[in-house]
Amino acid sequence: MTTESTAARPGDWRPQLRTTRMEAFSDGVFAIAITLLVLEIGVEESEESLARAVLELWPSYVAYVSSFLTIGAVWLAHSTITQFLRGVDSLFLRLNLVLLMVCSFLPFPSKLLAGSMTDTEDARVAAPLYGAVLLALAVLVSLLWRHALRAGLVDTAADGLNVRLLTRRLQPATSFYLAAIALGVVVPRVAVLLYPTIAVFVLVPIASIRRSAGARGRRSVRLHAETPTEGPRP
Amino acid sequence: MTTESTAARPGDWRPQLRTTRMEAFSDGVFAIAITLLVLEIGVEESEESLARAVLELWPSYVAYVSSFLTIGAVWLAHSTITQFLRGVDSLFLRLNLVLLMVCSFLPFPSKLLAGSMTDTEDARVAAPLYGAVLLALAVLVSLLWRHALRAGLVDTAADGLNVRLLTRRLQPATSFYLAAIALGVVVPRVAVLLYPTIAVFVLVPIASIRRSAGARGRRSVRLHAETPTEGPRP
Amino acid sequence: MTTESTAARPGDWRPQLRTTRMEAFSDGVFAIAITLLVLEIGVEESEESLARAVLELWPSYVAYVSSFLTIGAVWLAHSTITQFLRGVDSLFLRLNLVLLMVCSFLPFPSKLLAGSMTDTEDARVAAPLYGAVLLALAVLVSLLWRHALRAGLVDTAADGLNVRLLTRRLQPATSFYLAAIALGVVVPRVAVLLYPTIAVFVLVPIASIRRSAGARGRRSVRLHAETPTEGPRP
Amino acid sequence: MTTESTAARPGDWRPQLRTTRMEAFSDGVFAIAITLLVLEIGVEESEESLARAVLELWPSYVAYVSSFLTIGAVWLAHSTITQFLRGVDSLFLRLNLVLLMVCSFLPFPSKLLAGSMTDTEDARVAAPLYGAVLLALAVLVSLLWRHALRAGLVDTAADGLNVRLLTRRLQPATSFYLAAIALGVVVPRVAVLLYPTIAVFVLVPIASIRRSAGARGRRSVRLHAETPTEGPRP
Repeated sequence: MTTESTAARPGDWRPQLRTTRMEAFSDGVFAIAITLLVLEIGVEESEESLARAVLELWPSYVAYVSSFLTIGAVWLAHSTITQFLRGVDSLFLRLNLVLLMVCSFLPFPSKLLAGSMTDTEDARVAAPLYGAVLLALAVLVSLLWRHALRAGLVDTAADGLNVRLLTRRLQPATSFYLAAIALGVVVPRVAVLLYPTIAVFVLVPIASIRRSAGARGRRSVRLHAETPTEGPRP
Repeated sequence: MTTESTAARPGDWRPQLRTTRMEAFSDGVFAIAITLLVLEIGVEESEESLARAVLELWPSYVAYVSSFLTIGAVWLAHSTITQFLRGVDSLFLRLNLVLLMVCSFLPFPSKLLAGSMTDTEDARVAAPLYGAVLLALAVLVSLLWRHALRAGLVDTAADGLNVRLLTRRLQPATSFYLAAIALGVVVPRVAVLLYPTIAVFVLVPIASIRRSAGARGRRSVRLHAETPTEGPRP
Repeated sequence: MTTESTAARPGDWRPQLRTTRMEAFSDGVFAIAITLLVLEIGVEESEESLARAVLELWPSYVAYVSSFLTIGAVWLAHSTITQFLRGVDSLFLRLNLVLLMVCSFLPFPSKLLAGSMTDTEDARVAAPLYGAVLLALAVLVSLLWRHALRAGLVDTAADGLNVRLLTRRLQPATSFYLAAIALGVVVPRVAVLLYPTIAVFVLVPIASIRRSAGARGRRSVRLHAETPTEGPRP
Repeated sequence: MTTESTAARPGDWRPQLRTTRMEAFSDGVFAIAITLLVLEIGVEESEESLARAVLELWPSYVAYVSSFLTIGAVWLAHSTITQFLRGVDSLFLRLNLVLLMVCSFLPFPSKLLAGSMTDTEDARVAAPLYGAVLLALAVLVSLLWRHALRAGLVDTAADGLNVRLLTRRLQPATSFYLAAIALGVVVPRVAVLLYPTIAVFVLVPIASIRRSAGARGRRSVRLHAETPTEGPRP
């Protein structure tokens, strides 16, 4: 109680607000990058039937699903990381900006990928490039978490098992990405199908970290989930 | 009081935060998808008068209103669902991502619809395709709610009558959509006008679920609505 | 204390959360609509110097500033209105969706306006059309507030003087808009300069309503502004 | 306790909510402006290989990184400023709107810059223009902070050292920008590389202001960061 009162003296509330805005800004960038992907999809005016033109856009759909799932996975990892934090430092903020910069760049290689599938020569450039950006994202997310751990930004009260689990799951699937990039040079159309697969494999285990936490601390979570929306009960 | 104190021990606050960011991210995607729709509307350079060119864009306006109302209805249903939740699990998060993926895809079939109305052959492809995406959205929203119910994510303290009401209202209007899709193959221009109509019929009853809750618990709601913005009153 | 406890019983927290998400979603749509305006500005490839091409885009800059200030004023009015609310009902939500629909439509007439200034015939269509959308926005904002007043959504504890002030200020500047629309048919280039002027005149008085409130209740406001970020102090 | 009760009387909660929405809206605009930058990047259909086309887009990448870092720095400064505020007044809101207007205009000069690098004559127009918009941003951010200081919007409880530090750091790097603008007229390609450099130099010191605050008030910050997400502890 006494520590609470001292803690509550004005001027101490800044770092928390800062985490809030960092999350709000990041959510905004993720949400926009993921939604802009659809702008790249469009049929060209042509003589052929619309049905055929729509079917021939399959590379655009693959790129859309792949990029959507990847940004979705990055967002999921990002929101999992921030849940374990008790604050951020200046290096975290800057690493985060770089992550956002690469993430909102994704619509460009995604567009290249979609546009080059019909030309094998072009696809051999676009597929590895796309893979390289995905790899960069995975590495940056991992760096963000490692920095948080090293700089002591992780809430010490956080369950150690979950922290270790998250550390293992956030290891970038570097070997998978490198394999997909190499394959992209040889058979780009096959490589392209690997990317959404990796995204799905990343999405699944990260989400389950949260569930396991929920399962263990169930009752208190339940009580707790109501509190903030209800306001204080004296 | 005692349960409250135990609930408040550090490390238990994660699931709540996660719901918050899931909502922030979803709100972002809905808001962007709904706003990008206007980008598809544009007059082409031509000899004719601007007044005529603007009038001839009627299919774009119909598609805009229809897609806007549909995403608006999905957002309304989504925010109603999350109000009843006390937390989310990993399957909910992934279903939600799929819902967002289909939702932010909508500008593409919307653009196809707007662009094909002048050519009956094309319209017979675009109108059913558009309808299929709308149907997928309705089914996904319904799945999200059913999963929340089955997985015990719904707040047990929530008024049972409202839960049942919401369950009934979130049944996808499958037969309506299938009828509109079938009609789209035959007379696409008529079918197109059905879509905004369905959206309006979905918007109305969902919103009234909330109102009925407000009407019944009025006094406490009133007191309550002030609490969070005012801060605690000891 | 006792009323507080009854108010805090689970199941009553819905309407508040709903206001939060309505605001988050609206903020998102306003922010995106206002930011998309820049996408319409672009120089065409041509023989002439870039400096000249950039200068010749003046109608785009006027349209950008005018639309930006208008959406800014609508956002300001919207956030002022929601500050006075203790909850929303279903009609409010639907009126709000219509307001957002018209607001995110604005980039289209804005683009028409920017593109038609060089052709007087076209400008005579685009300028009044643009004005009509602005008028619709002003009328919808006013309707939203009137509905809130009539349906008893306004916090009864809110200072009556401010409520009356806001009611007066939110009267749509109908006569100004109608004059600007009529002028647009005759001398569109002059009319165009009226729109940002009206936006500025709307921005000023609404913002001052808030300040006057802050000036009066200064000390308590100061204390209060800290409370929400600090959490409750028992 | 007594001051708290008076503070909590209804009608006083407005200014706080208003800051929240101002931040939400600003975050939205920053996030969107930063994400739209990628839309300007695209390869044109051509005979040459995709690899070469991608490499030849280097001016687009420089413009992207430069604009991304600049908006990132503005966002960082903006969120640092709002952390020190206890409320906003009407002039702050309007200055903020002008800042957002210039910020979301940035994609246009950014596109001009990217598109003109291959033509020295055009680059001599685009590079200084781009620099002028960056300078305007720096001046507006500084004005926002100065106004907050002068109008007494800064929390008096805020650590004076940090306030002075922030004031010094938010001095616009006017001379740097003017030098870069002048250089842009002579050797635009060199000047272009200066802009991201300035952004990085702005990013670093602002972020460290926050860290120094966190380092000093560590224990209470730690306790505090948990409070808002945990709900009240009576």
